[in-house]
Amino acid sequence: MAALQGYGLISTNSPLHFPRTHQFDDYKRKKARWVSPIAAVVPNFHLPMRSLEDKNRTNTEDIRSLRVITAIKTPYLPDGRFDLEAYDNLVNTQIEKGAEGVIVGGTTGEGQLISWDEHIMLIGHTVNCFGSRIKVIGNTGSNSTREAIHATEQGFAVGMHAARQNIYRRHDSSFSNLEEYTENGVVVWSGNDDQCHDSRWDHEATGVISVTSNLVPGLMRKLMFEGRNSELNAKLLPWIDWVFQEPNPIGVNTALAQLGVARPVFRLPYVPLPMSKRVEFVQIVKEIGREHFVGERDVQVLDDDDFILIGRY
Amino acid sequence: MAALQGYGLISTNSPLHFPRTHQFDDYKRKKARWVSPIAAVVPNFHLPMRSLEDKNRTNTEDIRSLRVITAIKTPYLPDGRFDLEAYDNLVNTQIEKGAEGVIVGGTTGEGQLISWDEHIMLIGHTVNCFGSRIKVIGNTGSNSTREAIHATEQGFAVGMHAARQNIYRRHDSSFSNLEEYTENGVVVWSGNDDQCHDSRWDHEATGVISVTSNLVPGLMRKLMFEGRNSELNAKLLPWIDWVFQEPNPIGVNTALAQLGVARPVFRLPYVPLPMSKRVEFVQIVKEIGREHFVGERDVQVLDDDDFILIGRY
Amino acid sequence: MAALQGYGLISTNSPLHFPRTHQFDDYKRKKARWVSPIAAVVPNFHLPMRSLEDKNRTNTEDIRSLRVITAIKTPYLPDGRFDLEAYDNLVNTQIEKGAEGVIVGGTTGEGQLISWDEHIMLIGHTVNCFGSRIKVIGNTGSNSTREAIHATEQGFAVGMHAARQNIYRRHDSSFSNLEEYTENGVVVWSGNDDQCHDSRWDHEATGVISVTSNLVPGLMRKLMFEGRNSELNAKLLPWIDWVFQEPNPIGVNTALAQLGVARPVFRLPYVPLPMSKRVEFVQIVKEIGREHFVGERDVQVLDDDDFILIGRY
Amino acid sequence: MAALQGYGLISTNSPLHFPRTHQFDDYKRKKARWVSPIAAVVPNFHLPMRSLEDKNRTNTEDIRSLRVITAIKTPYLPDGRFDLEAYDNLVNTQIEKGAEGVIVGGTTGEGQLISWDEHIMLIGHTVNCFGSRIKVIGNTGSNSTREAIHATEQGFAVGMHAARQNIYRRHDSSFSNLEEYTENGVVVWSGNDDQCHDSRWDHEATGVISVTSNLVPGLMRKLMFEGRNSELNAKLLPWIDWVFQEPNPIGVNTALAQLGVARPVFRLPYVPLPMSKRVEFVQIVKEIGREHFVGERDVQVLDDDDFILIGRY
Repeated sequence: MAALQGYGLISTNSPLHFPRTHQFDDYKRKKARWVSPIAAVVPNFHLPMRSLEDKNRTNTEDIRSLRVITAIKTPYLPDGRFDLEAYDNLVNTQIEKGAEGVIVGGTTGEGQLISWDEHIMLIGHTVNCFGSRIKVIGNTGSNSTREAIHATEQGFAVGMHAARQNIYRRHDSSFSNLEEYTENGVVVWSGNDDQCHDSRWDHEATGVISVTSNLVPGLMRKLMFEGRNSELNAKLLPWIDWVFQEPNPIGVNTALAQLGVARPVFRLPYVPLPMSKRVEFVQIVKEIGREHFVGERDVQVLDDDDFILIGRY
Repeated sequence: MAALQGYGLISTNSPLHFPRTHQFDDYKRKKARWVSPIAAVVPNFHLPMRSLEDKNRTNTEDIRSLRVITAIKTPYLPDGRFDLEAYDNLVNTQIEKGAEGVIVGGTTGEGQLISWDEHIMLIGHTVNCFGSRIKVIGNTGSNSTREAIHATEQGFAVGMHAARQNIYRRHDSSFSNLEEYTENGVVVWSGNDDQCHDSRWDHEATGVISVTSNLVPGLMRKLMFEGRNSELNAKLLPWIDWVFQEPNPIGVNTALAQLGVARPVFRLPYVPLPMSKRVEFVQIVKEIGREHFVGERDVQVLDDDDFILIGRY
Repeated sequence: MAALQGYGLISTNSPLHFPRTHQFDDYKRKKARWVSPIAAVVPNFHLPMRSLEDKNRTNTEDIRSLRVITAIKTPYLPDGRFDLEAYDNLVNTQIEKGAEGVIVGGTTGEGQLISWDEHIMLIGHTVNCFGSRIKVIGNTGSNSTREAIHATEQGFAVGMHAARQNIYRRHDSSFSNLEEYTENGVVVWSGNDDQCHDSRWDHEATGVISVTSNLVPGLMRKLMFEGRNSELNAKLLPWIDWVFQEPNPIGVNTALAQLGVARPVFRLPYVPLPMSKRVEFVQIVKEIGREHFVGERDVQVLDDDDFILIGRY
Repeated sequence: MAALQGYGLISTNSPLHFPRTHQFDDYKRKKARWVSPIAAVVPNFHLPMRSLEDKNRTNTEDIRSLRVITAIKTPYLPDGRFDLEAYDNLVNTQIEKGAEGVIVGGTTGEGQLISWDEHIMLIGHTVNCFGSRIKVIGNTGSNSTREAIHATEQGFAVGMHAARQNIYRRHDSSFSNLEEYTENGVVVWSGNDDQCHDSRWDHEATGVISVTSNLVPGLMRKLMFEGRNSELNAKLLPWIDWVFQEPNPIGVNTALAQLGVARPVFRLPYVPLPMSKRVEFVQIVKEIGREHFVGERDVQVLDDDDFILIGRY
């Protein structure tokens, strides 16, 4: 495959599965200049199923310059289908609070639990409704190269600005047709919310691909745009740990339900955080200030019975 | 399912399979006021996977008023994937020549040969690139109610203005949850190109859902907009027969390849018209005038070897 | 594609959509030697995804010799999934009453409402449980050649004995790679239950692909095996009309629910026959004799409320 | 979901992603009685889409007693479809050399690169051809509970003896409907070839789910059946490292191609081991003895050009 001119293709080395804590430890141990192991931009990737009329082509530099990209949550109706009304509200809030891009169907958006037709539909929907106000980055990567190619072509066809890829890394150069999938770019984003402040202000990262910004988009923008703010960072770090105490997106899903902006519906195998942790979250919201969180209703603990867990959908 | 406010849902009674010639004979025999057996508008169909931000909602009246809707062809690359570059040119030409709507993935667009993910992608792509200039009507009907519901929801989610449905008709009222799928509207379009002139000017049909307008969009617009024109109609009728001599879209596919606006690629089981018919088409173009047809290259006969027929794609 | 040695591939010319009554009239008008327009055997069709260990290869002659092939109904659980327990009972009864083959996922089996993965699963299941006692013929045809090829390969891989195909017929010989899909065989089965007796005994058809045998397998075997029996044939003809009064398989589905051998669950768009027709069926069973019908419970009328109609499954 | 009587359901905690070396280190560090963190049997899992005729039900104890289960490789044709002829030879060799079970579509079988319809087909095919001679265990687990349930039901419907699951582990008991998916059994197999000898003879594991047995089934049987054999184990350990030097199944895929029993076809993102490693493998075969490896041709190095890497299939 030859060059895809003008498209921004974000390549990452399996961020979905990387051992979060371990990597953070590594980072602290090394104390070296921060270099993200996971994010890069692959320019010039050719997709021949191209369109002359695609309005949303984004050149690589425009994508590279984004400082707050939210890995947006996918909300569900009680029967497991997408709740587009809630989704639109979530994306709209992100735009109003200053996020510049959304990853659609990433780990946080539960790409692993949504079918490809749902996935491409959600990308197309996001482009159609919000494409002129925020960059839409589809997580069209896959463990299967076949699926990644197919989904990436379809994502661009419905207008996404860039693709996020998991790329199986292979250093041996004897198979040149794999070269097209390897990264060659420079690190620009932190994929870890707890590192993003230091990465940005100490290590020249451009910005962050954030999970936490689903909950406090304004604060994440402040961290990334308004200069070094160690006080705010220190305030947020402990509860970022709360967000990631179970595999992502369990924390953010539970919190958004408690904040009243997404129905308390989980596609299995994900389940909400237990009662004790939900009580903690109410306390966290009070400490940081309800006004910094998305939504306008009072934060609630919610009973176990309030949640709907679905296996068939 | 309750009311879908604002959406236009076009329902038809299996137009994909109706015996064309037979129906035409019926029409001539009856000489009665023309009432299409196939087209109607179902208002107020509720789809709960709704979005507050859907920019393309079209109320029923706006869809009802369209006079030329083209059942657009889906062009392919040599490996069977969509040729979006050619597709964009086809749609753009339709807009420039006066078509007001396109049916995406209808019989002519070979909906029966494209997978649902391709289909939804193509609807989303068309909305994204042309949705502000032409009404996009997705053929999200299916013999399977499950598939029809799923596809219709997805089509609206990616911004289509209206859905075309094949609806299994059942008059018995004992099963009230089927009522939502039955038609209750007034006939507005002719689905047969050879009847459209008379339907419009003699029988109060609003317009036409046309296959032939893929080839001569300007002439079809003239027939529908500029008053009774029996001379033009008489001139076109014989070669409309040429277009439909084999199951649609074999004729239009062959012609578009000969006109140089789509690659000569067929997804099986469709195959091109034979050499003798292709020679006839070159003659037809000369008689009617190359300038009335889409494309700018000389019309060609094409050899059998020029065509690519693909079974796996 | 080259020769598939040893496989029996049944090709038919779109039997799903053929106008039943019309054809029957033709037949009666012509009074000529009966030649079915729809059934043939294509020998020597090569599928390269072949297996050396396939235990169920059936040579063409073995398939050709079958006299009673039942187009088996697919029964559903209340949530729309397959009811394999009921299915196994249906197939087992067919075997005990003398049917020699089953078409899996034909029109009667609602192939058009089941997904390909369900379809292949059902073929594999039937082979696994009953393959040594009855010939398993998968309806792996499709309007889409791609899907037909894929499904046929998969069906043979899970052990089906033969494939039923709908084949788009094209007589023009300029495209030789289509030749492999055209029929070249001799007619062997009647596809119409009301013609099968006369076809067998007057016109040299081997047997019948039957819908009605879902209900009265023993009687259909008698018609096909025990010599001319005009009295029995005359007795059955009127109620065969009852079976086919609405598009197949509405009649057989309703009847099997009334007989207590399948749950009263319909995948939409199919709905049961109305109350008046269900009352008729109870009368028919009494006249012909409950003992000739499948199942052992009393035949019931069933209320409208007893039926479950499902659109999402 | 209630009890599935008689089915053996193997549950594992994400063996696909577990850090192999790390776990081995843990094992060595602890020097405690070996308890595999990954394998268990969940009895009594109810699947209502049940069949009365399923011939292959296997009770839990029968599955538990297996000592050599091979995670069988899936071989491909040059266009990426399954090479069932090669597959049948592989399975047949496993049976002849003493393997008692096969995992179909596991990591080694590239379950992550095959679609569900291919996967279920392959399970059904294996049951149909070999189900009476070897236990067929389908890897019908998934990160998505929906897909896992669907695939597991389908796998049992086509006759598999047991299912392998990846189960997301959650200890909080407040959501009782998750309980059905949690493990409660006793460890029986080693999932690591390099630990299997010690696990069996020192730590009471029953046997091994093996990758290496694709290559040397007879030696793996010897290790598991014929008593402590530290000499053989020591001889094999170094080249087991060769097998796992890159993510599984890269090593076994490369080796089987070199042994002439599978075509040198890779579905991307997997690629063969580089030339230098292929030269090493030829040396390994000579040292251990060609007769212990599957296949009968001379082992070859193969050129880079001999391999076919495919992204679309």
